[in-house]
Amino acid sequence: MSKNQEDFVTQIAKQNEDFSQWYTDVIRKADLVDYAPIKGFMVIKPYGYAIWENMQREMDKRFRATGHKNAYFPLFIPESLLQKEAEHVEGFAPEVAWVTAGGNEQLTERIAVRPTSEAIVCSMYSKWIRSYRDLPVLYNQWCNVVRWEKSTRPFLRTSEFLWQEGHTAHATEEEAEQETLKILGIYKDFAENILAIPVLTGVKSQKEKFAGAVRTYSMEALMLDGKALQAGTSHNLGQHFAKVFDIQYLDRDGQLKNVWSTSWGVSTRLIGGVIMVHGDDRGLVLPPKIAPSQVVIIPVAQHKEGVLDKTKEIFDNLSKLYRVELDDRDTYSPGWKFNEWELKGVPIRLEVGPRDIQSNQVVAVRRDTGEKMAIPMGELEKRIAVLLEDIHSNIYKKALAHREMNTHAAANMEELISIMGRKMGFVKAMWCQDTACEAEIKEKTGATTRCIPFEQDNADGRCVVCGKKADTAAYFAKAY
Amino acid sequence: MSKNQEDFVTQIAKQNEDFSQWYTDVIRKADLVDYAPIKGFMVIKPYGYAIWENMQREMDKRFRATGHKNAYFPLFIPESLLQKEAEHVEGFAPEVAWVTAGGNEQLTERIAVRPTSEAIVCSMYSKWIRSYRDLPVLYNQWCNVVRWEKSTRPFLRTSEFLWQEGHTAHATEEEAEQETLKILGIYKDFAENILAIPVLTGVKSQKEKFAGAVRTYSMEALMLDGKALQAGTSHNLGQHFAKVFDIQYLDRDGQLKNVWSTSWGVSTRLIGGVIMVHGDDRGLVLPPKIAPSQVVIIPVAQHKEGVLDKTKEIFDNLSKLYRVELDDRDTYSPGWKFNEWELKGVPIRLEVGPRDIQSNQVVAVRRDTGEKMAIPMGELEKRIAVLLEDIHSNIYKKALAHREMNTHAAANMEELISIMGRKMGFVKAMWCQDTACEAEIKEKTGATTRCIPFEQDNADGRCVVCGKKADTAAYFAKAY
Repeated sequence: MSKNQEDFVTQIAKQNEDFSQWYTDVIRKADLVDYAPIKGFMVIKPYGYAIWENMQREMDKRFRATGHKNAYFPLFIPESLLQKEAEHVEGFAPEVAWVTAGGNEQLTERIAVRPTSEAIVCSMYSKWIRSYRDLPVLYNQWCNVVRWEKSTRPFLRTSEFLWQEGHTAHATEEEAEQETLKILGIYKDFAENILAIPVLTGVKSQKEKFAGAVRTYSMEALMLDGKALQAGTSHNLGQHFAKVFDIQYLDRDGQLKNVWSTSWGVSTRLIGGVIMVHGDDRGLVLPPKIAPSQVVIIPVAQHKEGVLDKTKEIFDNLSKLYRVELDDRDTYSPGWKFNEWELKGVPIRLEVGPRDIQSNQVVAVRRDTGEKMAIPMGELEKRIAVLLEDIHSNIYKKALAHREMNTHAAANMEELISIMGRKMGFVKAMWCQDTACEAEIKEKTGATTRCIPFEQDNADGRCVVCGKKADTAAYFAKAY
Repeated sequence: MSKNQEDFVTQIAKQNEDFSQWYTDVIRKADLVDYAPIKGFMVIKPYGYAIWENMQREMDKRFRATGHKNAYFPLFIPESLLQKEAEHVEGFAPEVAWVTAGGNEQLTERIAVRPTSEAIVCSMYSKWIRSYRDLPVLYNQWCNVVRWEKSTRPFLRTSEFLWQEGHTAHATEEEAEQETLKILGIYKDFAENILAIPVLTGVKSQKEKFAGAVRTYSMEALMLDGKALQAGTSHNLGQHFAKVFDIQYLDRDGQLKNVWSTSWGVSTRLIGGVIMVHGDDRGLVLPPKIAPSQVVIIPVAQHKEGVLDKTKEIFDNLSKLYRVELDDRDTYSPGWKFNEWELKGVPIRLEVGPRDIQSNQVVAVRRDTGEKMAIPMGELEKRIAVLLEDIHSNIYKKALAHREMNTHAAANMEELISIMGRKMGFVKAMWCQDTACEAEIKEKTGATTRCIPFEQDNADGRCVVCGKKADTAAYFAKAY
């Protein structure tokens, strides 16, 4: 490998030397995003946007299969609507971008650019829902939201981001709870089987729950630097919003009742998660199911007779089954291209040169392991399918092993402090669920309560902070 | 038909008595949209949004096939960026919603909620484009935009709408012009072959062109009330934006040159066009290629043994090939359902009752003609395909005939005034291209210049207004 070729990759900081710089280098050099003129805003470039479109397609399929329908609610919410639910406005008001003029007119009431859409959706549901026959209402929207953030990082926390937000209304408390959990299940399935990211799921603490929710469920993933990422949340809103927005239905028994509602969302933040769970010192490692290109074909000695024709033929065949890129640019050497596509995280690289053509084979290289193998031309279509599956399962296992190696139990505060100081990762510890103890953990270690897992196996423990009786273990971690 | 069943449809105003009320009745009763809390904003309900998603899929396919890539640019544009191109800001400033506060902070510079994205896109292109090797840049985005409108109607003119906006940069003037025309061709193909809407295409007058463009191409459709709808525009921006945003590239000859750029868009306004071109007194008539449901199956006497099983079986089979709805609600009569699905414009209704099952057939009813026919069960899959094609072609022809019947030539101002007063529609007339003459037509008839068609057949005419020599005919119409 020439000096020039190496440079391309060595311009990326080493993961274990400066993870934060590594992240910034990778997203810029892989051409995922750029910084917008207004601080805290990003431009999602085509390669990054294609990842999001693949995520959208997979999620949308799952939402539809469970009876949800897409709709579109307005970007603008009158301040008075946002203020109806007290906790909700308290949580979001500090982050709202306010519109105060339309054209040359000063507005009489300030308008919020949606930070989330509960208020506007609920104001419409109160018009639409009349009878038990109208329930459940299961709507989702794909849109942009704005939250005025002080400290931002592309994908992870930006003042505008893209997401889906589901908003549902139900006749009973039980149905709303089932919906909340069903969506959490969809998110977990999506994270693990599409993004190859293992996630912990559970309930958020009262302090960490969504502003206005009764209960927030969350999925939490561990990044390679040992910090956690909240990767998706599903909120049981109880009747909080139904009451303040007056969403009532006439039940079978002739009584007017408030509905029970939920909301849930995942965002372009997941792209950041994919990068920080799977990437390495050579750049992105993309999960095959969302990679914009699953296979890149690189002609070797492409000026030689037959090489370009052959690669075009392979490209045409594989394109029927996979997302394929043929890189036949004559301005770059094969070595340069190898590095560039590694940086961009394409799962499989195929090298096709005159000698390969003569032996009726291609050389395949896996992005995740670097393993090289010769594949007979006739087996290519089938072998790619197997390889993509194997890459998915391998990177999932790697991520799971990393999380397991970085999940520790702490029996007391000293252990918790020591683990957080040395190794980061998740710490599982008994907790009395007192907010003061939670605050003390945060103050002494920087870690926050990530979630309280569903399975609990110690009904007779002691709180890691105060030592009082505790029947609940929780996961703590420093988080993005 | 019972009184009750008739009511459902008779609550819609008659098209030829009050077209505007008919439109409002149809969009509300077909459950396409609702009005949002802020005047001029709409909520797109699932049935309306599904039409948009089908439009998006078809258009996106065409953009990709011609080498365009999707990206996402920020919602917010600093006022200083918007002001760089003089004509552009003059055109859009009166419609901008201004953000002046983020959280609790007053902003030092006002921020525009994008009314269109030329300014933000060009500011990024000036960073990204360096060399002739970077060209052409062919990006598109699907997003929301905000234009503070005084007088609004759902889909046709709303303060927020959804659209796609393409933004491209090219090395030469010729390439930019080719791109602008290529997109106009895609739009026309989409309108005619997907939406079944015949369109006139041509150049906009200087007065009607996009703020900042050198030349705007447009497609114009005729609604059933005789008013025109601008259904899509493609702008050749020349070097206007490249110069003020400093988008330069190093050409093969070693010279720094400004790029040539284009932009183009269609929006949810097209849904309004579909309604007003194809609808009738019974409600929507949806073009098969974008109808959320292409076929609705309605069981007749569904309490009788075997009926629901049979309709379910038909549903399962047809669903593999088409978008199908099975309406097995037991709270409504078949007659009610017939009316409801007619109102919602589903192209084909299948009625399946005990006698049909016995004769091994179903009854199919076309939404466009009302024609009823018995179809042997075994032929159903094939016949549906033929019927859908035929419905598309029939409603296209009907719309074309309507347009042709309502397109008139005017040799002088008296004729123009008389036609506009009596029949509406398009008037084709010679025009000297003087803005004063254009203004006089508008003042005297309410009609605006819709487009100057590409084919011109009279190099030796006289302007319909001033009588001076004119070699150009233009289409004039009252417009939405």
